[in-house]
Amino acid sequence: MRQSQLLMPTLRESPSEAEAASHQWMLRAGLIRQLAAGIYTYLPLGRRVLRKLEQIVREEMDLAGAQEVLMPAMQPAELWKESGRYEVYGPELMRLRDRHDREFTLGPTHEEVITSLVRGEVSSYRQLPLTLYQIQTKFRDEKRPRYGLLRGREFLMKDAYSFDADWEGLHRSYTSMYEAYHRIFTRCGLYFRSVEADAGSIGGEGGTHEFMALADIGEDTIAVCDSCSYAANLEKAEYGGKEQAASEESSVRDEHEAELVRHHTPNIKTIEQLSQAFELEAAAFIKTLIYAVDGKPVAVVVRGDHEVNEIKVKNKLSAAHVELADQTTAERVTGAPTGFAGPIGLQIPILVDDAVLAMESGIAGANEADYHLGNVKPLIHLSQAAAGDFRNAEAGDHCPRCEEGRLAFHRGIEVGHVFKLGTKYSEALHATYLNASGREQPFIMGCYGIGVSRLLSAVLEQHSDNNGIIWPRAIAPYQVHVVPVSVKDTVQMDLAAHITSRLSEAGVEVLMDDRDERPGVKFKDSDLIGIPLRIVIGKQAAEGIVELKTRKTGEVQQLGLEEALVFATGAEY
Amino acid sequence: MRQSQLLMPTLRESPSEAEAASHQWMLRAGLIRQLAAGIYTYLPLGRRVLRKLEQIVREEMDLAGAQEVLMPAMQPAELWKESGRYEVYGPELMRLRDRHDREFTLGPTHEEVITSLVRGEVSSYRQLPLTLYQIQTKFRDEKRPRYGLLRGREFLMKDAYSFDADWEGLHRSYTSMYEAYHRIFTRCGLYFRSVEADAGSIGGEGGTHEFMALADIGEDTIAVCDSCSYAANLEKAEYGGKEQAASEESSVRDEHEAELVRHHTPNIKTIEQLSQAFELEAAAFIKTLIYAVDGKPVAVVVRGDHEVNEIKVKNKLSAAHVELADQTTAERVTGAPTGFAGPIGLQIPILVDDAVLAMESGIAGANEADYHLGNVKPLIHLSQAAAGDFRNAEAGDHCPRCEEGRLAFHRGIEVGHVFKLGTKYSEALHATYLNASGREQPFIMGCYGIGVSRLLSAVLEQHSDNNGIIWPRAIAPYQVHVVPVSVKDTVQMDLAAHITSRLSEAGVEVLMDDRDERPGVKFKDSDLIGIPLRIVIGKQAAEGIVELKTRKTGEVQQLGLEEALVFATGAEY
Repeated sequence: MRQSQLLMPTLRESPSEAEAASHQWMLRAGLIRQLAAGIYTYLPLGRRVLRKLEQIVREEMDLAGAQEVLMPAMQPAELWKESGRYEVYGPELMRLRDRHDREFTLGPTHEEVITSLVRGEVSSYRQLPLTLYQIQTKFRDEKRPRYGLLRGREFLMKDAYSFDADWEGLHRSYTSMYEAYHRIFTRCGLYFRSVEADAGSIGGEGGTHEFMALADIGEDTIAVCDSCSYAANLEKAEYGGKEQAASEESSVRDEHEAELVRHHTPNIKTIEQLSQAFELEAAAFIKTLIYAVDGKPVAVVVRGDHEVNEIKVKNKLSAAHVELADQTTAERVTGAPTGFAGPIGLQIPILVDDAVLAMESGIAGANEADYHLGNVKPLIHLSQAAAGDFRNAEAGDHCPRCEEGRLAFHRGIEVGHVFKLGTKYSEALHATYLNASGREQPFIMGCYGIGVSRLLSAVLEQHSDNNGIIWPRAIAPYQVHVVPVSVKDTVQMDLAAHITSRLSEAGVEVLMDDRDERPGVKFKDSDLIGIPLRIVIGKQAAEGIVELKTRKTGEVQQLGLEEALVFATGAEY
Repeated sequence: MRQSQLLMPTLRESPSEAEAASHQWMLRAGLIRQLAAGIYTYLPLGRRVLRKLEQIVREEMDLAGAQEVLMPAMQPAELWKESGRYEVYGPELMRLRDRHDREFTLGPTHEEVITSLVRGEVSSYRQLPLTLYQIQTKFRDEKRPRYGLLRGREFLMKDAYSFDADWEGLHRSYTSMYEAYHRIFTRCGLYFRSVEADAGSIGGEGGTHEFMALADIGEDTIAVCDSCSYAANLEKAEYGGKEQAASEESSVRDEHEAELVRHHTPNIKTIEQLSQAFELEAAAFIKTLIYAVDGKPVAVVVRGDHEVNEIKVKNKLSAAHVELADQTTAERVTGAPTGFAGPIGLQIPILVDDAVLAMESGIAGANEADYHLGNVKPLIHLSQAAAGDFRNAEAGDHCPRCEEGRLAFHRGIEVGHVFKLGTKYSEALHATYLNASGREQPFIMGCYGIGVSRLLSAVLEQHSDNNGIIWPRAIAPYQVHVVPVSVKDTVQMDLAAHITSRLSEAGVEVLMDDRDERPGVKFKDSDLIGIPLRIVIGKQAAEGIVELKTRKTGEVQQLGLEEALVFATGAEY
């Protein structure tokens, strides 16, 4: 491809709206342009990369035995009502009406459509297992689209759905997808971890893993063991070496020892303020938060230096929604302003974290303005509360899997998700097959997603330097950038054309910068668009000598024509 | 691919909702399933064929120098308001609002988006010419979706847009696309004609061609010369050997000869009834129709055996809308009930077709209930009317291009369209570049569409027999169907596996029917899904002999293994 003809509008400066590095590079290198918030056009370079990602995904899906289909973006609302998601999904679901006033959704996902398809076409266990996938545009009306393709409203996804006769079958299908995902992300040059994750609102039972690209901009926090392969989403992360409840022996012998001490703490509300006032570490305090669990108030009690994990609370109570109670509710149930809540005397259910029970004593809110209580002995005073693990894992916690490891935290971008759905959709939509004994059974399903356009962003978060993009070769828009220094020099241009044609014949994709620009401009653009190998054709062209520069390492070599061609067709860059 | 694992639900019977042959075969061979009216899921076989079509289109677009982009389906309504199409497009434009109540359209086409993109990114004549294309899902809320993929509401299209500095450039871009379209449809095995077409409501000046797949089910009528290459849409078709106006000599010498004759014609309204009553051919009558042209009544006068061509009327009057006037209007301007309109005495503009002026005299409506006028001499009585070509071409008319040819009519399915837009969108959206003298000029644009999913239907309208599909090899889902007669026979199965693997290694795509079904069922399905070459492995497997059947010709050969492999990897089927 001749660069003079390519629509590749590079930008000198970083556009102010681009907060994330990947977003900046995509705009500056002319990969994408925004049409509306969270909605982008892919320009030729961006489209090329996206197609390479699609192709890698497609090859690995086919290799894993999945069959490609293509489902519509427009989905009848009836199907979503049948699954119960039409009301639940909320404002992120794009909705429209056709000319006959029939309701449709623009699919953010296709569980309903695929389940209804398979319900109609598959009737016997002999037709199972079956895994279907598509690569298709999805729609989600994000409240705050941001970071370019990382959180968009129209985006490209690969979604796959498996149908099995039993849970063992699902496990095989799931594992096969899990392994395919590892191959896909590896081929794309991504640094990633697969992490155990919570089921979230999509529902379902059993295992689920998220594939996280490690990047500071990531919206998720993941806990990773520094010794074994354990990795989990923060919301799901467990930890080892659980705090033992304070021993019976250390507990009180007589009532006097259990007497609470009333501390006047005017306007001292936060753990930080308490810590200063009492000259004690945060771990010496007991923190009480009032939650609304499916609308009803529940107190959750954790150590002062810990954070409540709402997912663990939710799972413990088998609840649908857990959120912090509003101020009015919190003040009503505690009888005190925010900052003075405590576990003692509350008339609502209380969950107390194991780490609190391991404290001999601590200081907690008094449920009275400007007062805290000292000498709170959890084993005594909180003996009626439900105990368990209700806190987030913390950096330095023991690994829950291995003996030696400690947990460290990273930020991650979710680029893939594998999920054991079980019978959630097959039951809701009455999608059944006949088993070997002729009995009707709901399909056991799994679903598997990859954000293909998001993956493009994630790769760029990891593969750039101050000068621009550094494409992993497998997804580079072109592998070689041929740059004649002066387009007016016919010797250079002839050699450039010769190299381009020889490489193209060898199946190497070449971009040739035939623009009449200063060398500085050409090299700057070349660094910016990040093609893995640059072949500069300058003054030594007459002697048949060219300069090769590897974008990733910056390594420069002067080579003769034939050697250069060997290098450019090889795997050394 | 093993057929036992493939989701390919074939149907014995033709579903009642399928009127078109292509629609029937697509349902019966398990290529597609309907999700909602005009909205389909592509099953694995259908998806494979669709991808092959996509790939052919992509290769030819790239070869023609077009660059692939990907634009969003969701388009801000503002852009459509800027171009003026938001109101004009009518109910076929899918519309929705996002969570912030902003209006969007689901693009049926992308002129607005591409023009606004190029407006922002291209500023100099040095960046021209530029042709961008995409292969993408489009939405159009058809009033009556039908014929499967032929007239759907969500469909796959390739659309391309060219930007040039001048009309000569546009002509080159247009010609390059025109030629690419010929290559594309030829590669797909389609019988087609490129026909001159009218600009239609999309607007623009200059040339436009439609690519028509010849098929009885086609919604368009095309006129084709039986001698030269002339072909045109009925609405656009011209004809040669235009009727000469009746010569002066044959016209009246004195007033008496021009005297009108009043005929009582009670309840005789149609040309057919008149023809019977007067015992004259339809060509002896003069037909007058009242049209609403941009809301104003206009009379159009054609010979009794001719049909008014509304496009020609529209173009003559440079009008935006031409439609038959409603009955009230027609009765008001003629003063008579429908069936008795005539050109004489009307107080509204009159267009009279050349063929009428060639009549010495004729019989026309009297603008009075139950009366017609005889001895109407167009040259005298209609001398004030505007003359011209206002009728449809007819089978048997002279070709407008060559001397010898006569026009014949065919039905066609529009599968492609190339269109010189000119400055319609660049002016509306103020999309300009600086020319060599630094002056701002609007881009000269062209647009080029191919209905990729519709093409799939069109191919199937032409490529089937009573037993099923006959895929053209270039777009067949698999090239070879390996059918072991008995899956319990290990010799057969081993040979089937061997052949499958040898062919796969040679790059041939193979479907292997490993189902435990009766041979009759297998052969029926094989005919139905129409893979070009079938290799049947039966009793002679032990001697290494197999049977090859070419789907298209029905030709059967018994061949040894190696010969069979040579044939299957060759180009002879």
